[in-house]
Amino acid sequence: MRLDDLGEFPLIERLTAGLESRTDVALGVGDDAAALDLGHDLGADHLLLATCDAQVEGTHFLTSVATPEEIGHKALAVNLSDIAAMGGEPLWALVSLLAPPDLEVTTLDGVYSGMRALARRFNVALVGGNVSSTPGPLTLDVTALGRVSRQRLVTRAGARPGDRLLVTGRLGAAVAALLAFTAAPPDAAIPTEALAEARRAMVTPQPRVREGMALAATGQVTAMLDISDGLAGDLGHICQRSGVGAIIELAALPVDASTRALALALGRDPLRLALTSGDDYELLCAVRPEGVAAALEAVRAVGGSATIIGEITAPEEGLRVRAQNGALLAVDARGWDHLRPHDQPPDAKTDMGEQSAGSGARS
Amino acid sequence: MRLDDLGEFPLIERLTAGLESRTDVALGVGDDAAALDLGHDLGADHLLLATCDAQVEGTHFLTSVATPEEIGHKALAVNLSDIAAMGGEPLWALVSLLAPPDLEVTTLDGVYSGMRALARRFNVALVGGNVSSTPGPLTLDVTALGRVSRQRLVTRAGARPGDRLLVTGRLGAAVAALLAFTAAPPDAAIPTEALAEARRAMVTPQPRVREGMALAATGQVTAMLDISDGLAGDLGHICQRSGVGAIIELAALPVDASTRALALALGRDPLRLALTSGDDYELLCAVRPEGVAAALEAVRAVGGSATIIGEITAPEEGLRVRAQNGALLAVDARGWDHLRPHDQPPDAKTDMGEQSAGSGARS
Repeated sequence: MRLDDLGEFPLIERLTAGLESRTDVALGVGDDAAALDLGHDLGADHLLLATCDAQVEGTHFLTSVATPEEIGHKALAVNLSDIAAMGGEPLWALVSLLAPPDLEVTTLDGVYSGMRALARRFNVALVGGNVSSTPGPLTLDVTALGRVSRQRLVTRAGARPGDRLLVTGRLGAAVAALLAFTAAPPDAAIPTEALAEARRAMVTPQPRVREGMALAATGQVTAMLDISDGLAGDLGHICQRSGVGAIIELAALPVDASTRALALALGRDPLRLALTSGDDYELLCAVRPEGVAAALEAVRAVGGSATIIGEITAPEEGLRVRAQNGALLAVDARGWDHLRPHDQPPDAKTDMGEQSAGSGARS
Repeated sequence: MRLDDLGEFPLIERLTAGLESRTDVALGVGDDAAALDLGHDLGADHLLLATCDAQVEGTHFLTSVATPEEIGHKALAVNLSDIAAMGGEPLWALVSLLAPPDLEVTTLDGVYSGMRALARRFNVALVGGNVSSTPGPLTLDVTALGRVSRQRLVTRAGARPGDRLLVTGRLGAAVAALLAFTAAPPDAAIPTEALAEARRAMVTPQPRVREGMALAATGQVTAMLDISDGLAGDLGHICQRSGVGAIIELAALPVDASTRALALALGRDPLRLALTSGDDYELLCAVRPEGVAAALEAVRAVGGSATIIGEITAPEEGLRVRAQNGALLAVDARGWDHLRPHDQPPDAKTDMGEQSAGSGARS
């Protein structure tokens, strides 16, 4: 059955039937707005966090690669990731659905099933939304709301020279999978298991909510964000907001074996993919040097992994990468720009140049 | 200049430069999420309200009719209207923009200018958002957040038989203008001034924020919503949620002179347009009989207008209209369904039938 056969209100009822709630949801789906009970928890000690991010078919997900469940997962995950990047706890989400009228209803069943499964895992209540018809591609626009203790809020603006750079999880898998699906040379021998693993990273990114809260709770994190525009690009955001420079140790980037295998088969440098992958949704943060051990331990304690990949420098030193041969290279911190045309994901090859001798400090 | 010439981050900076804020915005545009200070105001006494609604070019607005400023105004207005419908005070908004890459940047300048002007009028801070490229039509998806005193929250669910129905403002102008622009008979003599006035109602709906807060503050309003699916359709929502029926007095519907003139020129019945107009964004509420005078006075006191248009009945009596000849007609409460194809706006002619003698109570 198509959406326009079912109709708007039956669709909303179908998608929201038996939705899990939270005790702080005074009024959920089905009125003009959701009413959320801030109670005593979210009074003077906490800040409310709010973020929204859209996923557009063909741009942010490919129906040829991702299942409806995975599409739903990712639409919510990227928003929980933004809450995590502030050190916050996600609480509620609203889903705005823009769907072509000839879409099969079962596709949306799958999308909402994926979203609900992830919401359940993080105790997030889906409290509202909107359904609109569009002649354009299927688009899921999610708003996530959360809270953070006033003392724990971590922005992009606090990094200081000498802070170490810490990243959660592994980098590069999402872009390696994307390249394998969309730009593999015809004669490339793509390793099946490696592709399956990288595909999972691409279509079901795991929001680092527990890691973000644990990192913020150490009190040692001076700046944090999630990597959605590529490590280099997002580090550029921290540098800009904090008024600092940074060095990334290329050899230190955490890249797993399947991403390496996939990159090899595609004729790409896995570390350069890790540097510019646009869809990792790992957390990147600056940590005071004396807090590094505590930060690493905090992530480990919640079942996550974290790696030190560089450090914050003085602003005039800009954003640089130390290559495996020891050379310091300036990086164009463009990362992903969602409005410019991309024939292929950005590759560090085109963005890096040998830094001029005059401005380069080596250590 | 096109969006893809400017790029994502310069665009965001351009659209958000010098944005007005509020003292309760701890962190606005430019990080992973906005951080909002609930302070002492929004503690145990208040509920947080959250709603989102998307406007799609060609479906919710026509670039041939509305200026960019008007498009921006409406995208925010329909969301403030949802907060108003809960008796709430809008505080913050997030804007998710889905734009084709070849769109002119100046068009978005206008859209944001319209949005910012309305935000300023209601002291709403634009605190975040998202920009995504889409091959589909220009789409503005706004999330509005607000607050309401726990004792003042008005949902769709509290109407009781005997309550009177009150509507703010005037009805039917938006659909009359839409018909004039899209479905006027070739020989129709459209009155210019009437069209200009109806067009204004269509492209710049006024969110009834002050009216909604004033109505809720009387403590006499048992159910409320904003009319976005048409008076009959939205009253159907109240009936369904409250488990009641209702009678609309057709002759009582507030229709202004320009809408009447326009309907006449189009060969339409203005009262039937008022009954089914999909885009009025007036508030419709049920008021205890003893509270009617207080409710009318409360709206007047904030500079608004309100009209009593019917009453709530027992559920088994369904949703009915009393025609000018006194006949009681059953109404199909379908209203607007945003997923079904519409050759033209729904017209009461096709939705009404003489009610069978068996179930009709006349008074």
